[in-house]
Amino acid sequence: MLRRALQVVARCGQQGALLRAPRILPGLNPASAFGSSTDSLVSRFCPEKTDLKDYALPNASWCPDMLSLYQEFLEKTKSGGWIKLPSFKSNRDHIQGLKLPSGLAVASDKGDWRIFTRCIPVEGQGYEYAIFFHPSEKKSVCLFQPGPYLEGAPGFAHGGSLAAMMDETFSKTAYLAGEGLFTLSLNIRFKNLIPVGSLAVLNVVVEKIEDQKLYISCVTQSRDQQTVYAKSSGVFLQLQLETESSQQ
Amino acid sequence: MLRRALQVVARCGQQGALLRAPRILPGLNPASAFGSSTDSLVSRFCPEKTDLKDYALPNASWCPDMLSLYQEFLEKTKSGGWIKLPSFKSNRDHIQGLKLPSGLAVASDKGDWRIFTRCIPVEGQGYEYAIFFHPSEKKSVCLFQPGPYLEGAPGFAHGGSLAAMMDETFSKTAYLAGEGLFTLSLNIRFKNLIPVGSLAVLNVVVEKIEDQKLYISCVTQSRDQQTVYAKSSGVFLQLQLETESSQQ
Repeated sequence: MLRRALQVVARCGQQGALLRAPRILPGLNPASAFGSSTDSLVSRFCPEKTDLKDYALPNASWCPDMLSLYQEFLEKTKSGGWIKLPSFKSNRDHIQGLKLPSGLAVASDKGDWRIFTRCIPVEGQGYEYAIFFHPSEKKSVCLFQPGPYLEGAPGFAHGGSLAAMMDETFSKTAYLAGEGLFTLSLNIRFKNLIPVGSLAVLNVVVEKIEDQKLYISCVTQSRDQQTVYAKSSGVFLQLQLETESSQQ
Repeated sequence: MLRRALQVVARCGQQGALLRAPRILPGLNPASAFGSSTDSLVSRFCPEKTDLKDYALPNASWCPDMLSLYQEFLEKTKSGGWIKLPSFKSNRDHIQGLKLPSGLAVASDKGDWRIFTRCIPVEGQGYEYAIFFHPSEKKSVCLFQPGPYLEGAPGFAHGGSLAAMMDETFSKTAYLAGEGLFTLSLNIRFKNLIPVGSLAVLNVVVEKIEDQKLYISCVTQSRDQQTVYAKSSGVFLQLQLETESSQQ
């Protein structure tokens, strides 16, 4: 029922609003074809050679649970199926050579831009996370360890920090699974607080792709699955990135 | 319908889960009386004299829209009605002398803890915001200017940064309006992207307080109200903070 309602609302409301807003998304054509295969999206997103720093690598701040589950998934990448996503400082690095659809004004590239979930550079203090993606099953797992700069209630991660981690994992998954670019909605039911410094595992699944929208669900829980931290869902709008004709 | 569903779900689901989880929230009694008046909550929350740095003060990074709307609301605090909320480095500073209900294990106070929305100390790079609260009408306004470290799509604020700003504004409002302590749910419909460095205004209203839950809604828009960035709602669980018997 929720999905049906979201479809209707999205068609009549959010998507319409996005497309009507002349200052933000003028001239977009949501009916464009979505021809990029997941393979080509993934190979562009995960360059084999790059000088860019990958922030999704183990460091001394990772708790034993985080480290061992990371190694477990890294093993799974060798036998095929799972892919470890690199995590650069900015989304600009992830979409090199591409740009948002025409009409989306992009501010100057000269500044010091950071993707929100990599806003705190000190290891262990802010976001520690690594995302693994399974192209054929269109699902992801995000290992998330909130640091003390992500606090809400004393000793626990801020609900907003988990919301942002969900949105970021959803958006990477949506892009790779089907060129999902913009979050239309995000719904979260919080169940338990995540202690700062501990591991939370986000299990993300693309439920369906329909009417140029991706419907994604997520269960966030402890590694032993005994504690559910949150259940959530999100809807993303498909839009194709354009080839950059000139470097800014 | 959403609210009715949430009530039922919250009673049967989230709240139950929170209360059942022995490691996170053992021994809480949600049926405790909520005797604290909004006035006493506000006066404790907004100390007239404090050595703590208030981060919700104008600085050179604020755009003209942010600055002038801040001054406008500051004028309104003089004639009564509106109150400017201070914003300290940590929630621990906001609840000095109080602690979370028994059973909620709090990690050591020795570390460098920061509330998530004040995680980036450099002016203008991360979160710039100020919250004004209207006790008798149980509503808030948050002036929010996302910096370049809060980026999602190039040039625009990450959806998760707005989600966190909502959760933070909701939680302060919920606490002062009726001792709302824990986010049970957060639902966001994104309409337009917020350009980095511009002002977004969150208009937050407590719709009702029922069955120990606060139901909150929010419209986030540009100052001229011509662009709606998002519409959202949240549900918070009421729980009383306890008096701290000994300093850690």
